[in-house]
Amino acid sequence: MSAPATVRKTSSDKSPAETLWDLAREDMAAVDALILERMQSPVGLIPNLAQHLVGAGGKRLRPLLTVSTAAMLGYKGTSHHKLAAAVEFIHSATLLHDDVVDESNLRRGKKPANLIWGNSASILVGDFLFARAFNLMVETDSMEALGILSNASSVIAEGEVHQLAALRNLKMTEADYMSVIKAKTAALFAAATEVAPVISERPDKERAALRDYGLKIGLAFQLVDDALDYGGLESALGKSVGDDFREGKMTLPVIRALKTASDEERAFWRRVIVDQDQKPVDLETAVSYLRSAGALQSTMEMAKQFSAEARDALMVFAPSPWRETLADLADYVVERIS
Amino acid sequence: MSAPATVRKTSSDKSPAETLWDLAREDMAAVDALILERMQSPVGLIPNLAQHLVGAGGKRLRPLLTVSTAAMLGYKGTSHHKLAAAVEFIHSATLLHDDVVDESNLRRGKKPANLIWGNSASILVGDFLFARAFNLMVETDSMEALGILSNASSVIAEGEVHQLAALRNLKMTEADYMSVIKAKTAALFAAATEVAPVISERPDKERAALRDYGLKIGLAFQLVDDALDYGGLESALGKSVGDDFREGKMTLPVIRALKTASDEERAFWRRVIVDQDQKPVDLETAVSYLRSAGALQSTMEMAKQFSAEARDALMVFAPSPWRETLADLADYVVERIS
Repeated sequence: MSAPATVRKTSSDKSPAETLWDLAREDMAAVDALILERMQSPVGLIPNLAQHLVGAGGKRLRPLLTVSTAAMLGYKGTSHHKLAAAVEFIHSATLLHDDVVDESNLRRGKKPANLIWGNSASILVGDFLFARAFNLMVETDSMEALGILSNASSVIAEGEVHQLAALRNLKMTEADYMSVIKAKTAALFAAATEVAPVISERPDKERAALRDYGLKIGLAFQLVDDALDYGGLESALGKSVGDDFREGKMTLPVIRALKTASDEERAFWRRVIVDQDQKPVDLETAVSYLRSAGALQSTMEMAKQFSAEARDALMVFAPSPWRETLADLADYVVERIS
Repeated sequence: MSAPATVRKTSSDKSPAETLWDLAREDMAAVDALILERMQSPVGLIPNLAQHLVGAGGKRLRPLLTVSTAAMLGYKGTSHHKLAAAVEFIHSATLLHDDVVDESNLRRGKKPANLIWGNSASILVGDFLFARAFNLMVETDSMEALGILSNASSVIAEGEVHQLAALRNLKMTEADYMSVIKAKTAALFAAATEVAPVISERPDKERAALRDYGLKIGLAFQLVDDALDYGGLESALGKSVGDDFREGKMTLPVIRALKTASDEERAFWRRVIVDQDQKPVDLETAVSYLRSAGALQSTMEMAKQFSAEARDALMVFAPSPWRETLADLADYVVERIS
């Protein structure tokens, strides 16, 4: 007997990311092979460390976006594989450097490379991967794609320095915050999707649409990340929360909560963020303040708004399974719970 | 009354580097202006930190080589300024990262940036300068020059990781050492001079000659640096010596001295380099071992050999003030005392 029609498939359903992976399986296998090939070096420490971070898979969301948008446009060459691998190398290089900068204890659920091989190795292998990204881009012979990704790279670094300079500063504004996440996160998503119409030689309108799609996905992605760091909308505090809090990183939830904070709450934020004087119970208090101010809710709502705009940006393209899955991915970025 | 003819001018004489600076004054002013312009950012920490390292001048040996070799070839465009600034940015980025990796206490006679602004700022501003180097290269629209410099960048990082992995390892061979200095130092000199014939659209023979010139200058430069870190051939130990010794860096003088070391000397090197168990008097002992083994002498001789080869490489070009000064610069790199 078949199940009642009202029973909806849930956990067995594929996420849009998984559907996109299925559609792009061959392309992503080519990207994986390139990544593995280009992280090799006779200096054994390089592939060992790179394997830990890059070789182990992961979501590969950014390169997936590059090959999927290229596929949607009917691109027939192989430059999209090289650019996708380059995008993942740039992302990996920033992760390796972020680990040293943030002193984080977990990266993709694993011990970060710098805690295994040391800060120096993480810095230098990050530099290596970054340079290898440019080697790959040169091979595509597309100066326009190179310009987009090299520009994104300097914008990312600028955003990271901006974030560093704003650490533990309660005066950080919402505009500052948006500027930081646009630079440190959304710029690479935007570049990852903009290069597809460039190598496919599509009109400016499509290039602008895909740049916008990537940018909005990136903004939504970071907003969700920043809400999840305080447990998101769920009530229980998981294991991987509180990193931003401990580092004194000024993210939108805190900026929003500060706007309506009482004197007592403001004193609390000053102590934990500015003075970095934190007790084990403080994270729970912080979350309760964020919730009562509706700050996590409003952060997620802003993410949903960007996600909807990302979906809209795709509507200049003809309907196709690629377009639909890329549109669904915009929702998924907001709905993911980790 | 005039001075006797036998009195030779000494300290008032210009070094070949100064003569080259005079010849290239206008080009170097353009490079300086570009460097200053492209290290700007609304994120104030970036220009502040960059100014400390890049803005303050310095020898600018690498960009000087780029504009001088281009001038020798009669290059008429402006791409050599952009490539020269890019070369200096790549060099500065590696210095910022090296400061964090080496934990050095002095850089160009000043306190290193990481001891003023912190390791995180040095890592991220290094990334920014590195990305800005690629922005500049993209503007030249020369994919060939971009390929040369992006390849040099990954080779540099590879050399830095190799050096890190070989730290405190008495088994490091002379071949390992040559491979490290060729990558970490000579590759950028070679790229700095190779891009000139490329943008000048000169035949392969001239490209190979200038690449060779830069490579040999770079090898000579690093060999001298490594001898100077133990005081060079002078008897007195200056203030800026002993960095390599303290870090346990295996440079040619130590590798050469180990070849003929007695059991007692070998035990000494094991204690100070492998075990990093160093007393204040040990540097002096190290220098005496290096001297009695003739290791500083033979390191300087090898530098002189590369310097002569650099000079020879230029002989495919017609005589000109540029060629003569570039040839003299090869000697100067070895004769400099700091």
